[in-house]
Amino acid sequence: MNISEFVKLSIGRWRSQRSGHNLAFSHFEEVRSTIDIIALPTDDPAVIDICKLYNIDPSNATNPFRMNWEGESDWDEAEKVEGTCILVPIPDPENPSRGKLLRDRGYAETMSAAGEYHFADDGTFILLTEYDRAAAEERIWFTTPNLRFRVALIKTSDGKGVVTASFSSEIRALSS
Amino acid sequence: MNISEFVKLSIGRWRSQRSGHNLAFSHFEEVRSTIDIIALPTDDPAVIDICKLYNIDPSNATNPFRMNWEGESDWDEAEKVEGTCILVPIPDPENPSRGKLLRDRGYAETMSAAGEYHFADDGTFILLTEYDRAAAEERIWFTTPNLRFRVALIKTSDGKGVVTASFSSEIRALSS
Repeated sequence: MNISEFVKLSIGRWRSQRSGHNLAFSHFEEVRSTIDIIALPTDDPAVIDICKLYNIDPSNATNPFRMNWEGESDWDEAEKVEGTCILVPIPDPENPSRGKLLRDRGYAETMSAAGEYHFADDGTFILLTEYDRAAAEERIWFTTPNLRFRVALIKTSDGKGVVTASFSSEIRALSS
Repeated sequence: MNISEFVKLSIGRWRSQRSGHNLAFSHFEEVRSTIDIIALPTDDPAVIDICKLYNIDPSNATNPFRMNWEGESDWDEAEKVEGTCILVPIPDPENPSRGKLLRDRGYAETMSAAGEYHFADDGTFILLTEYDRAAAEERIWFTTPNLRFRVALIKTSDGKGVVTASFSSEIRALSS
């Protein structure tokens, strides 16, 4: 698996069921959402802006995409869970199974971020992102082309403690 | 990672938060349980019986263990979720990162089963078990020695459709 294959498999509309575990308090959260993953051209002005933000030559970007999500949480049924962001993969020229993933701020994110990704030998995409006071680890894998799973951990900034863990089952919506 | 290291890390009492996703109906289940994983001697009569059941020389068994669990599901709060079983790893003599995992019937399982396990390059334990009319795929990995995660999929017997997916966060209980 490489990032180009991975993004191509991800393009489309997904129905997501997400469970969040707050590990300190043993709380559960349940979220149902719709996720749209849309391919962008590499010369999209927003893609070029994100590359500039990180001082990366836009010609190194491959398969950039936009992700939109909209859903509902059982924690606050009145409030919609929604957001959008643009993600720009920058593969490592020396190792196609690794690279950086740049993300713009979007309107739902608190900050832009550049994560480091790699693929495990079973094809799992693993993304590590460090923030000022936290770190995130995401694992995404396809069981079939129409079913993928995602585990996301939010860690303390030293990477040792895990604050929350979440699990998403994402099924491709065959009709939109 | 090999099975001996993996079982040794697993021994102890764990507080588990499990979320089940029914993929066809988009239902969530929440289970809180306590899991005890207890090392057994390789000459335990129950371990020898399980090996005989599968026509395997008991001298090939390594690090057998008993697993007990007791908890509560939000689907049926009146009923305790509980069970016990004995698991017997049989490493592949030619490849220490692979092998079989034998399981007795226990009183909560519908049948005994022999699964095939291997370790991914990131240390994830992956277990595939085929039943008459279904197949199970489990992935277990440690983020720290005191925190592990488990993703379990129940598939149709052809291995193509996924019926349910579950995610467990398991924290070592530092006092029992």
